[in-house]
Amino acid sequence: MPISTSLTRRELLKAIGLTAGATAMYHAMTALGHAQESPFPGPPVLSPAKPGARVLILGAGLAGLLAAYELRKSGYEVEILEYQNRPGGRNWTLRNGDVYTELGGATQKIAFAEGNYFNPGPWRIPHHHRAVLHYCKALGVPLEAFNQFNHNAYLHSTEAFGGKPQRLREVWSDMQGNLTELLAKAVNENQMDLPMGADERDQLLQALQGWGLLDADYRYRSSLHTAVRRGYDQMPGGGRVGPPTPGPLLDLHDLLHPTVWQRLNSQLVYNAQPTMFQPVGGMDQISRGFMRALPDLPVRYNARVTRIDQTERQVSVTYEDTQDGKATQVSADWCICTLPLTVLGQMPVQASQAMLSAIRAVPYSSYTKVALEFRRRFWEEDDAIYGGTSVTNQEIELISYPSDRFMSDGPAVLLSAYTTGVKGSLNLTRMTPEERIEAALSQGEKIHPQYRKEYLSGASVAWHRVPWMLGCRARWTEDKRQMHYKTLATLDGRIALAGDHVSYMPGWMEGALLSSLDAITQLHQRAQEA
Amino acid sequence: MPISTSLTRRELLKAIGLTAGATAMYHAMTALGHAQESPFPGPPVLSPAKPGARVLILGAGLAGLLAAYELRKSGYEVEILEYQNRPGGRNWTLRNGDVYTELGGATQKIAFAEGNYFNPGPWRIPHHHRAVLHYCKALGVPLEAFNQFNHNAYLHSTEAFGGKPQRLREVWSDMQGNLTELLAKAVNENQMDLPMGADERDQLLQALQGWGLLDADYRYRSSLHTAVRRGYDQMPGGGRVGPPTPGPLLDLHDLLHPTVWQRLNSQLVYNAQPTMFQPVGGMDQISRGFMRALPDLPVRYNARVTRIDQTERQVSVTYEDTQDGKATQVSADWCICTLPLTVLGQMPVQASQAMLSAIRAVPYSSYTKVALEFRRRFWEEDDAIYGGTSVTNQEIELISYPSDRFMSDGPAVLLSAYTTGVKGSLNLTRMTPEERIEAALSQGEKIHPQYRKEYLSGASVAWHRVPWMLGCRARWTEDKRQMHYKTLATLDGRIALAGDHVSYMPGWMEGALLSSLDAITQLHQRAQEA
Repeated sequence: MPISTSLTRRELLKAIGLTAGATAMYHAMTALGHAQESPFPGPPVLSPAKPGARVLILGAGLAGLLAAYELRKSGYEVEILEYQNRPGGRNWTLRNGDVYTELGGATQKIAFAEGNYFNPGPWRIPHHHRAVLHYCKALGVPLEAFNQFNHNAYLHSTEAFGGKPQRLREVWSDMQGNLTELLAKAVNENQMDLPMGADERDQLLQALQGWGLLDADYRYRSSLHTAVRRGYDQMPGGGRVGPPTPGPLLDLHDLLHPTVWQRLNSQLVYNAQPTMFQPVGGMDQISRGFMRALPDLPVRYNARVTRIDQTERQVSVTYEDTQDGKATQVSADWCICTLPLTVLGQMPVQASQAMLSAIRAVPYSSYTKVALEFRRRFWEEDDAIYGGTSVTNQEIELISYPSDRFMSDGPAVLLSAYTTGVKGSLNLTRMTPEERIEAALSQGEKIHPQYRKEYLSGASVAWHRVPWMLGCRARWTEDKRQMHYKTLATLDGRIALAGDHVSYMPGWMEGALLSSLDAITQLHQRAQEA
Repeated sequence: MPISTSLTRRELLKAIGLTAGATAMYHAMTALGHAQESPFPGPPVLSPAKPGARVLILGAGLAGLLAAYELRKSGYEVEILEYQNRPGGRNWTLRNGDVYTELGGATQKIAFAEGNYFNPGPWRIPHHHRAVLHYCKALGVPLEAFNQFNHNAYLHSTEAFGGKPQRLREVWSDMQGNLTELLAKAVNENQMDLPMGADERDQLLQALQGWGLLDADYRYRSSLHTAVRRGYDQMPGGGRVGPPTPGPLLDLHDLLHPTVWQRLNSQLVYNAQPTMFQPVGGMDQISRGFMRALPDLPVRYNARVTRIDQTERQVSVTYEDTQDGKATQVSADWCICTLPLTVLGQMPVQASQAMLSAIRAVPYSSYTKVALEFRRRFWEEDDAIYGGTSVTNQEIELISYPSDRFMSDGPAVLLSAYTTGVKGSLNLTRMTPEERIEAALSQGEKIHPQYRKEYLSGASVAWHRVPWMLGCRARWTEDKRQMHYKTLATLDGRIALAGDHVSYMPGWMEGALLSSLDAITQLHQRAQEA
C-alpha cells in the first residue's frame, strides 16, 4: 500500500473513529492495510524569514548542518560554532593519514590502504530512515546497498557447538525446524488444547510441515529437503559427480543456549532488515554533501562553547578558541543547540529549571568500535562471505564485512568489534588502542583463523574517550522519557535543542535529522510570531 | 572455517575413516566443523594439447564459451556453431531496440529507456556459485549485489488477509511469534512429553520467549517489543512527537493458509540467501566477457545443427545456414555438444543407445517471464522497497524490484512475472505477448495500485516458444537421474555433452560451467591417451 495518499491513513482513521466509533475504525484499519506512518513528511516549507533574523547553531554534526541548510533556504543568517576542526560530528570517517587523539592522550594515526575507511559512528542507513535517504538524494550523495544480515556469515558462541563457529543459515534453519517439530509433536499427539477447530488443526499441521521443512512423519531431519534451506555438505555439482549430500544437523541442546538465539535475534531486527544503505566511500559523505550545499557557511572551528545565556531579545554564547584559549562572546536572535547532553550538562546554560533538569537527566552509552585492515578478503575468498555480519558472545560482539568492492584484490577493512554491552565496552574503553586491537584479534581469530596471518593495521574509537562526545548515544529509559523528553524537545525561550538525543532513535542519524526539523519548525514559528 | 586448507576436509575425513573407523570420522567431522565442499576446485590445469587437435563446440551459451576458453588455453583449435546470430544462449539480456520473434511468429521490439534491461534467462548469482564468480572475476565482469529477500516487500494471497498485500516482515515475524507462543503454551501447561530434562525445559522456555519475542506471559502480542522485529505503525520519530506505536498483528488463521507459508518459504531458500550478485548492466555481460577473452574465435552464427556423426577417428556435424538454407558438414577430432536436449533429441545423433535414450528421456520445464517498464520507481518512492521480491499466489508468482541504481529518477523495469507453475506457465505461454502484459498488469496491480498509471511498455519470454530452446530447463526426476544421468555426463566416443542439463542444478549458470569443466576434463584426458 502506498504511504503517500492525499488524506493520510491516520487522519482518515481518526475521522472514522470520531464519527463511527472504535469498531468501525478497527474495520477500516483492516481494510486500509497497515501502512506505516513515516515521521518524515518531506522537507519543511518555511515562509520567508524576517530580514536579518540570525540563528546561532552549536555543533556542526548532522542536526546542526541540516538546521543551517533549511534555515538558510528560508532567509535566516546562520553561523555555526564547532569544537572540532572539521564538520560532521559523529558522521565521521577515518582514512589513511587521519590522526585522532582520545581522552587520556593516546593518539592513533590511521594507516589504511587508499580507499579503505572506518566509520566510528553511524555505519548504515535502514530503508525506513526516509529523512536520511531524502537528504542524501537532495545533496547528491551516492548510496550503495549495505548488507547486514548474511545467512552465510557465522554465529559463534563460547558456550555452544564446542566453541566452533556455525553458519547463520544452519543455526536459523535448525532452530526453526526443531521448534516446529516439537510443536507438531504436541499437536499430533493431541497433547495440547488448541485455540482452533479440527479443520484448522489440519491446516496448522500442514503449515508446520512446510514452515519447518518437516518430513512425512513431522520430523526435522538431515536431508536434501532441509538442505534446500540450510545448505549442503557436498554441494550440487555438474558432470560426473554424485548427487549433493546434506550435512549433519546442529544439536538442539546447543541451539537453546541463550547466547545462540540472542545473537541470532540481534540480526533479525527491523533496523537491520534489507535493504540498508551506506554512502559510497564512507559515512562522512553526508556531512560533506551538506558542506557542498552550504559553500560560504560561516563555521567557527576549534570553538569550545563554555556558556549559553539568553534574554527575552537574544541569545549569547561564549566560546573558547581551543588553539589560543581566547574567549569570545557571540549573539544572535535564536540558537539551535546540538551539543551532546554530556557536554551541555557541564556548562552554565540559561534556561528553564525543567530544561536544566532534563539536560542533566540522561546518561550516555559507552560503545566501542575496532576496525582492522587485512591483506586480503579471506572472508570472501575462503569463506564465501560477502558483506553481512558474524556474531559472537565475546566482547567484540560482531564482525562486519565490507559491502563494497566485493571480490576486489588488496587490503580491506573489517569492523572487528562493535561493543555495546556495558562490561565489554568499559573493558575496551580502559585499554590502550594497541590493547583493543589485540583483543579484537584474539577474539576474532576464534571465528577466522586467518586473522593473525593477514593482519595489517587497526584503529579504535571508544566513545567515552571521544573529547567532544564523552559517550556514544543517549540512554533513555521509560521513566526519563516520561519526565524529561517533552521538555528537552520544546523550544526554551530562544534556544531549541536538536540532535539524536532529542528523538526516539538515539544513535541514528535519522533521529538527528527529524529532531532538527522539528527544532527549526518551532524556532521559525516563534520567530514569525515575535 | 576456511574452505581452502592444504588437505581438503573430505580427504582428511576419508583418511580418518579408513584408519580409525566411522565413529572417529564422525567425531572428526564435528571437530572440523561442517564446511561445505565446493564442487568448483578452481579452473582446470590442462597439459598442452596435441598439436592440431581440433574441437567442434555446438552452442555458444556459457557451457560452450567456457569450453572454448579453457580448451584454447591448452592449445586446442576450437570452432563454435551457433543457431542464433549472437553468443550467450540463455545468458541473454533484452534492451531498447532488441527484436525477438518467438515460435508462432509473434515479434516484440523492446522499447525500454537507455540503461534499462530484462534478463529473460538467469538473473541472479548465489554466493555459493563459485565457478560463475571465479570466471566473472577472471573475465573482468563487474558484479553488484542482487537483493532477493527483502523483508519490506509484500506477500499477497488471494486466499488470505482479505486479499490485501502484507509486508513480508510482518508475515514472517507473526508466523514465528504465533507458532512459538503455541509451543510455549504446550510446554508451560505440561501438555507434552519433552525429549529433555527439567533444566533444558527451562532453557527451552527461555529460548521460545526470545525467539518468538513473547512477553512475560509467553504471549506474542502487538507491542513495542514485537515491533522491533515486525515494524511499527507510527515509526519512532524526533522532536515533539509521541512515542512509536506498534501495529495490529496478522491473524493466525490467515498465516496458516498454505498460500502464505508456501510463498514465504520460497524466499528463504539457500539459493536465494544473501549475498547474491548480478553483473552490472545485464546478465549477458558474462557471455560478452567470454567473447572479449576470445577475440578471434571462429563462431559460425545462424548455424542450425541438423545431424551429428562420429567414427573412431573424428566427429562430423552437419548444419544448415538459417539465412540461405545451405547445408554444410564440418569435421573435428572431438565435439562438445551443449545443445538443449529438447533440440538434440530431434536430430540424428551417432552415439551409444544408452546415450540416445538419455537424450530423449528428460522433459523441459516451461517457465515464462514478463518485464514491465514504469515511469518512475513508485515501489521505492511510495513503498520503501529497494530491490527484493514481492510474492503472490497469482500466476505471476512474484514481482522482483531492481537492485541497481536505487533512488534514481526516470523509468525502471520490474520483473513482473516469473511463472514456474505448470498451469500458469502454460496459460501465459499460449497468450500473445500483449495478453501476457495485460495479465502481469492486472495481477500486479493487486499489489501495486500504481501499476496502470505508471506503466510504459513491456516484454515477455515464454521459454517453450523460444526457437532455440523449446523449454527453459531440464526437469530431472529421481528415477531419471538413476537411469540416465551418468550416461549423459560421460564422454560417448568423441562427443561430450555439456550444459546445465548435465548437472544437479538445471537452469543455473553454475551447472552449465561445472558440467562444461567436467566435459573438457574428460575430453582432454581421452585426447591425450589417444
